[in-house]
Amino acid sequence: MIAYKYEHFKNDLQELRKRCEPFEADTIIAVARGGMTLAHALAMALDIRNLQSIRAESYDGDTQRDLLTISGQCDLSLSTRVIVVDDIVDSGQTLASLMPILRLENSHCEFKIATLFTKQTALIQPDFSLHEATDWIDFFWERDFLKSNLL
Amino acid sequence: MIAYKYEHFKNDLQELRKRCEPFEADTIIAVARGGMTLAHALAMALDIRNLQSIRAESYDGDTQRDLLTISGQCDLSLSTRVIVVDDIVDSGQTLASLMPILRLENSHCEFKIATLFTKQTALIQPDFSLHEATDWIDFFWERDFLKSNLL
Repeated sequence: MIAYKYEHFKNDLQELRKRCEPFEADTIIAVARGGMTLAHALAMALDIRNLQSIRAESYDGDTQRDLLTISGQCDLSLSTRVIVVDDIVDSGQTLASLMPILRLENSHCEFKIATLFTKQTALIQPDFSLHEATDWIDFFWERDFLKSNLL
Repeated sequence: MIAYKYEHFKNDLQELRKRCEPFEADTIIAVARGGMTLAHALAMALDIRNLQSIRAESYDGDTQRDLLTISGQCDLSLSTRVIVVDDIVDSGQTLASLMPILRLENSHCEFKIATLFTKQTALIQPDFSLHEATDWIDFFWERDFLKSNLL
């Protein structure tokens, strides 16, 4: 298990910002819950005010759930270039289900995907990603705020 | 100016979680952009899977904008107790505009507001808040990821 701490995140943000910059996005969509903190940081780094979220979770703890839930609606009527942000592409099921829906409903937009980690075996590969996930990643937002970890 | 670092945030989360817990919320709405990181952390701390966001920004840098923008739609059809999360209640204009709309559109839900900081002079006071804002707060998400601060 890799402990992904805030300090790692802070350093990674600089690199992820550089990779995303040439796309000149005007909108960021966070995939909740996992992508929320990253999407916020990236919106600040890229100075993008249009920050929204969509719910799509396929994990329950570390057991993959049978059913993928996608809910919430993004308003992309004023958007043209959109970065969809998640913490990790694991199986890729979440993004493989979500992206066709977003593209179908918003054919005027160009979409890119940004993540911190990606598994090589994922169904879908992000456009901007930093690390290959070869182990379970223990993100600080999944660890630092849990009741059991607060002493 | 107060530099609000990640370590402060991590400690504050424990206290904010305790205050929010008795309400037994099933849903968290982040006020984007400022409330996104806090909402994510609180959703993890309270084990709330239904995490959504709404856009409402009245600030442009540190100059108050004339026009408040509220956009995005939350799906609260399966919710009953909702915590609306923002980093700070400053003038209170954002939440004073947002809350009546949320309550009107979702009369089946009970709403509470949670923030880290609140100004005494704000138009609206949150139900759960930790600190009085007597100075400009430099949140780590407004500082750590900016290009000019990345060396």
